[in-house]
Amino acid sequence: MQTEIITIGDELLSGNVIDTNTAYLSDQLWLKGIEVAYHTGVRDDAEKIKEALLHAATRAELVLVCGGLGPTADDFTIEVAAKAFKRKLVPDQHYLHYLENLFRQWGRPLTETSRKQAYVPLGAKTFQNRVGTAPGIGLKFKKTRVYFMPGVPKELKQLFHDFILPEILTLRKKTDVFESKMLKCFGSAEADLDSALKDMYVNRVDIENVRIGFRAHFPETFIKLSAWDKNADHAKKRLHDVEAKIRERIGKYVYGEGDDTLEGVLGALLVKKKKTLAAAESCTGGLTAHRITNVPGASKYFLGGVVSYSNESKTVVLGVSPETLKKHGAVSGQTAIEMAQGIRRATRADYAVAITGIAGPTGGTTDKPVGTFHVALVNHSGNWEKKYFFPVNRDWFKLIASSIAIDRIRRELLGPT
Amino acid sequence: MQTEIITIGDELLSGNVIDTNTAYLSDQLWLKGIEVAYHTGVRDDAEKIKEALLHAATRAELVLVCGGLGPTADDFTIEVAAKAFKRKLVPDQHYLHYLENLFRQWGRPLTETSRKQAYVPLGAKTFQNRVGTAPGIGLKFKKTRVYFMPGVPKELKQLFHDFILPEILTLRKKTDVFESKMLKCFGSAEADLDSALKDMYVNRVDIENVRIGFRAHFPETFIKLSAWDKNADHAKKRLHDVEAKIRERIGKYVYGEGDDTLEGVLGALLVKKKKTLAAAESCTGGLTAHRITNVPGASKYFLGGVVSYSNESKTVVLGVSPETLKKHGAVSGQTAIEMAQGIRRATRADYAVAITGIAGPTGGTTDKPVGTFHVALVNHSGNWEKKYFFPVNRDWFKLIASSIAIDRIRRELLGPT
Repeated sequence: MQTEIITIGDELLSGNVIDTNTAYLSDQLWLKGIEVAYHTGVRDDAEKIKEALLHAATRAELVLVCGGLGPTADDFTIEVAAKAFKRKLVPDQHYLHYLENLFRQWGRPLTETSRKQAYVPLGAKTFQNRVGTAPGIGLKFKKTRVYFMPGVPKELKQLFHDFILPEILTLRKKTDVFESKMLKCFGSAEADLDSALKDMYVNRVDIENVRIGFRAHFPETFIKLSAWDKNADHAKKRLHDVEAKIRERIGKYVYGEGDDTLEGVLGALLVKKKKTLAAAESCTGGLTAHRITNVPGASKYFLGGVVSYSNESKTVVLGVSPETLKKHGAVSGQTAIEMAQGIRRATRADYAVAITGIAGPTGGTTDKPVGTFHVALVNHSGNWEKKYFFPVNRDWFKLIASSIAIDRIRRELLGPT
Repeated sequence: MQTEIITIGDELLSGNVIDTNTAYLSDQLWLKGIEVAYHTGVRDDAEKIKEALLHAATRAELVLVCGGLGPTADDFTIEVAAKAFKRKLVPDQHYLHYLENLFRQWGRPLTETSRKQAYVPLGAKTFQNRVGTAPGIGLKFKKTRVYFMPGVPKELKQLFHDFILPEILTLRKKTDVFESKMLKCFGSAEADLDSALKDMYVNRVDIENVRIGFRAHFPETFIKLSAWDKNADHAKKRLHDVEAKIRERIGKYVYGEGDDTLEGVLGALLVKKKKTLAAAESCTGGLTAHRITNVPGASKYFLGGVVSYSNESKTVVLGVSPETLKKHGAVSGQTAIEMAQGIRRATRADYAVAITGIAGPTGGTTDKPVGTFHVALVNHSGNWEKKYFFPVNRDWFKLIASSIAIDRIRRELLGPT
């Protein structure tokens, strides 16, 4: 199905807003086996919108239009579409009724401006927006299906997911059923995962009707899988078989699926095993604690953290011995272990993790260049420590060091495999 | 100057990468008074790229093409452009020489694949890429100027900023000089800033040849200013006058300009005043320390932080009195002050900030609903504390609470105004 996305809005072509809708829609369609061929971005300009709609209708069978459905004067996508497709603009009685009820509930009058949102080109249908007031709209022009959605990502996602995507799937000529899944990996570079799996999707060894795609999301890699078949159970089986093959090769790097995050998976494990956690960080500067506490309910298992940027805070708050700092330095395995022991003592957590290193851009030495860090993990049964070296920029350094720390605790909780 | 951006790459239309180049280029051009009229996104497909190039050349005077300049087989933007514009592909001797030298320095052979990057359509010129190996390329086709840049944001930015934008500015018919500036604001909602300034840019009261644009960047608002005139000094003066008017009305919310960040401005103030800082956080979970330590050189002034998620860590690590916790609760002004006092005692910092609150989604009560937090600031001369209420999602809650804390210290360092 030849597909085009049209995004409308001055804000996208003035650099005020980054367009995330195109990536979202492309991704969702990819998972169902539909490739987007074109993307056109236009300003809030009636002539340009008209031209883009008509041009798309000549080359695409499916057109997704995002933006310009709001109630204000600079939102006129639907009026322009009605003119372009030579249709009258008529009220959708069903949606008008819905809006009247909605505004009554809110205790606000339904103004003429808001009523405008229930007007659609003759023959079009509306889809109910549960997040905002502008409906999704679908129509057919010659051989092309055109769908209109608001540009607000939350509203667009709801309408696309609940109504428009299911309808698109019924329109496809081939009756294949698609099953899809995202595997989330950490601990191996994208290039290495790619090499490990390349024969599966380049030469398509042993796999039929399954697509494998990579998405780099530093420091993680996501693997997108999509399988299809005429029969739903067969599609599921294809997906399952390919997933099993992938896990056989690189399974130890797969930490989760779909919307999982490293810190979310860690949190679920801690809840399940009824264990508590604390963290002491220097070079990651609080990012580890920040990520752990991004998970709702983290207060159940995260007891606390210390960001010990100065040597003094390492000795006073965490009880790292001045001799250790003198002999091994602040960036050393021994200091990392004593930091972890210190925060574990203070919080009485089951597990304590510590990170110390040199984020740069300054502070490196020949022995300990910028990019060096140590991660330590301490529990009732002992200490573990390891040195790492990632000479990347400060932001990425903090990200990868905190990811390694979080992943290390996760692996500890999983036990030997 | 009618302008179009073309982005090329399967990854953009499979949802694997979000396109940030369009927003960057649009923004940079906006600041110079050039509006982007169209954006076209195409796959790595020779026919579609050709069609997009020729279509753009019929409607735009300036075309910026991003992506598909790499050395690999699926990067063929330049070959396609040569065919579309009916030019021979010839080596640019100057760039070839540059590549040969570069690879010699690296001790690597210059392969045929890499040599390919020095081939350009006859009559085109190259711009030196200091980040990667693909050059920027500029050519004229009929009345249209076309520029090609790699899709890697870092390479694109360097080429655009150093060579392509300056050349575009010399091509403009009108000889106006543009001056631009971004003012960064915190502490007032976008709608309020908008109301305060509306008459200036809607009715254009007292301002001529100046554009004012808003960019929401939760929880901050950026105000983009652009002024033009035939004379450079006059353009500067226009910008200066409008900036002065804006600052007169909303100056207390303007914390910086351009690339400034709240935490960076705070850091510079701490360095300047030779003061040190420490932070104790509960509900922000380490985000405050993380942001403060994102600034290179933060170790000069940031001594350390504590993330006290449990009551026990508040009493043991920070020395908050159990009576205070019992009488006022963990989310209270008194607890916030004692947290700040505790981290100040432990680190001996000049200033200590503390945040305690309820991020949600659970944990709220009738008295202290989700979204409640207290910020305290302590220095040698005394204590300050204030209660806030922002019932937003967990991520935004952490962001706004940490921003308020950082801004509060900044204002303290600035002194009474």
